[in-house]
Amino acid sequence: MEGILLECENNNLKLTGYDLDLGITKTIQVETVEPGAIVLNARLFSDILRKMPDEQITITSDQKLLTRIEGIDTEFNILGMSRDEYPDMPAVDDSQGFTAPDYLLKNMINQTLFAISVNDQTPVLTGSLFDLNSGKMSVVSVDGYRVALRKENIASDTDVSFVVPGKTLAEITKLLSDQEEAMTRVSVGSRHIIFEINGYTVISRLLEGEYLDYKSAIPEGHTTRIVADTRTVVQSIERTSIIINDRNKSPVKLVTEGSTINLTCESTIGKVSDRFEATVEGDPIRIAFNNKYMIDALKHTECDQIYIDINGPLSPIKIIPTEGDDFLFLVLPVRLKNEN
Amino acid sequence: MEGILLECENNNLKLTGYDLDLGITKTIQVETVEPGAIVLNARLFSDILRKMPDEQITITSDQKLLTRIEGIDTEFNILGMSRDEYPDMPAVDDSQGFTAPDYLLKNMINQTLFAISVNDQTPVLTGSLFDLNSGKMSVVSVDGYRVALRKENIASDTDVSFVVPGKTLAEITKLLSDQEEAMTRVSVGSRHIIFEINGYTVISRLLEGEYLDYKSAIPEGHTTRIVADTRTVVQSIERTSIIINDRNKSPVKLVTEGSTINLTCESTIGKVSDRFEATVEGDPIRIAFNNKYMIDALKHTECDQIYIDINGPLSPIKIIPTEGDDFLFLVLPVRLKNEN
Repeated sequence: MEGILLECENNNLKLTGYDLDLGITKTIQVETVEPGAIVLNARLFSDILRKMPDEQITITSDQKLLTRIEGIDTEFNILGMSRDEYPDMPAVDDSQGFTAPDYLLKNMINQTLFAISVNDQTPVLTGSLFDLNSGKMSVVSVDGYRVALRKENIASDTDVSFVVPGKTLAEITKLLSDQEEAMTRVSVGSRHIIFEINGYTVISRLLEGEYLDYKSAIPEGHTTRIVADTRTVVQSIERTSIIINDRNKSPVKLVTEGSTINLTCESTIGKVSDRFEATVEGDPIRIAFNNKYMIDALKHTECDQIYIDINGPLSPIKIIPTEGDDFLFLVLPVRLKNEN
Repeated sequence: MEGILLECENNNLKLTGYDLDLGITKTIQVETVEPGAIVLNARLFSDILRKMPDEQITITSDQKLLTRIEGIDTEFNILGMSRDEYPDMPAVDDSQGFTAPDYLLKNMINQTLFAISVNDQTPVLTGSLFDLNSGKMSVVSVDGYRVALRKENIASDTDVSFVVPGKTLAEITKLLSDQEEAMTRVSVGSRHIIFEINGYTVISRLLEGEYLDYKSAIPEGHTTRIVADTRTVVQSIERTSIIINDRNKSPVKLVTEGSTINLTCESTIGKVSDRFEATVEGDPIRIAFNNKYMIDALKHTECDQIYIDINGPLSPIKIIPTEGDDFLFLVLPVRLKNEN
């Protein structure tokens, strides 16, 4: 967002940033001497405002777009751009929508956003799928190697499904409040979505295309269940990860031996073995995984204790809460050579 | 420093990092089962130590240089390098030396290091000049556009002068303690220097060559003296700097008008004017300077109030304390076009 549109009339100043994918507007009370509009460089304008020591400033633009930003002892003169050159925001057909608590939206986005695809080959996977059905909302991210799924009850009759770009979600979590009573209105059109958050209006295009059928990837049941302390598992994987780098993406191998979980890794740098105690139910297991995907998932559980459910060495590793079903993370295993 | 040399005997482990310019050694107490030496990758070894949860670890190297680093539940096997491939540290002819309080050395280095040259054309200027004479020590950095000079009394009979590379000084300030009683021994040879800091021994080559004759650059007296609040001047320059960037290095112009200091700047981005009140003694002045050099100097005064002494628009701007003579900063002015 290089330019910020300032529109002023009736003692209101409407600020708009818009880059064709994502637009944010906020209206503030000002004293209007003369109505008008100007586009200013966003970075320059915010630098100026941040460094101005004054409580009150005056902004004046002339017909040549020369804009004066004035405090008591400081005066900036910069050249603006015409509002005519600023793109129009799309109109949203507010056909469907719902209202949700800020803290819940923020949490659901934060716990899933990390797993979106960074690969542009399947654009729809660079966003998270929101699915609202019979008062239950799920937010899902999938990148082909892992799934992050977060579920909550939302008081709403609307049944709707849409995919929001990751960039939009990252901006939204900055605006969403942690206060328990704060609520955000979400209006869903066919091609765009509007979030009304704390006086800000965020309009974003939606991602089009068929979302990956993540449900069919979730294995039912398990042949092995590890009941583990999340921090212990993360630290153990982090230790085995020391000899992994961008050039050698060696997998971490997990082998159970009674109630001992052995993690090993071997790369061109060296070998490491680490072990910790956990409760192991069911069959003993040998399985390998990508260290980063596993740590990402475990850290985003925000839980002290988790179940790691496994259905054999070639089936996705499932991480779920020990109570309830608020979240589910899947990590695809890495197939080991010479593995039975 | 890619490799770290571990040398173990008599229950002492000596750790050495050395890159031909700068070497640091530290000896710690260990339990020696068998004496020996090995070179390990520094980053890998420190990553391992940081992530090992154990209070005690065992390090074993075999004849093939395979090295095992072992805790209770964790074991790393990495390949080391032979000590024979590690460069020898130079012997230092400890001909001259002195002892100085840590906090003083740290402060003198920090207040001058920013002004060393980053240009390799005159290598000797990429370090700071230490000059100890009759119990007075000065530390000086010069880069051709500015001078930073810091003076203190040091209880020592040694008269010595040497130039320490900026890289060494940056490492040393990390090791120097803030505790008032901590003292550092400095041994000065003809080509190398040793700092003994808090159990660490730092050995560095010295920079050779004729240091710039900064003394002749310091103007005597002044025709204009501005008595100013340091923070006020910095903030005013920072505001005028908003429209300066790497591509347009527009100077900041300072003009006195009675007790008002007017700062202005003009670039392709726009124009800015800012003003503040100060005490102005002597002639009114118009002078221009590089915003960054001036802010650097002002911030490193670590003083609430300073004198800005000026001797005409083409003479260096001198920043000195309002009391004492602990520091002196010079900033060369920028010659303005069409200036009388």
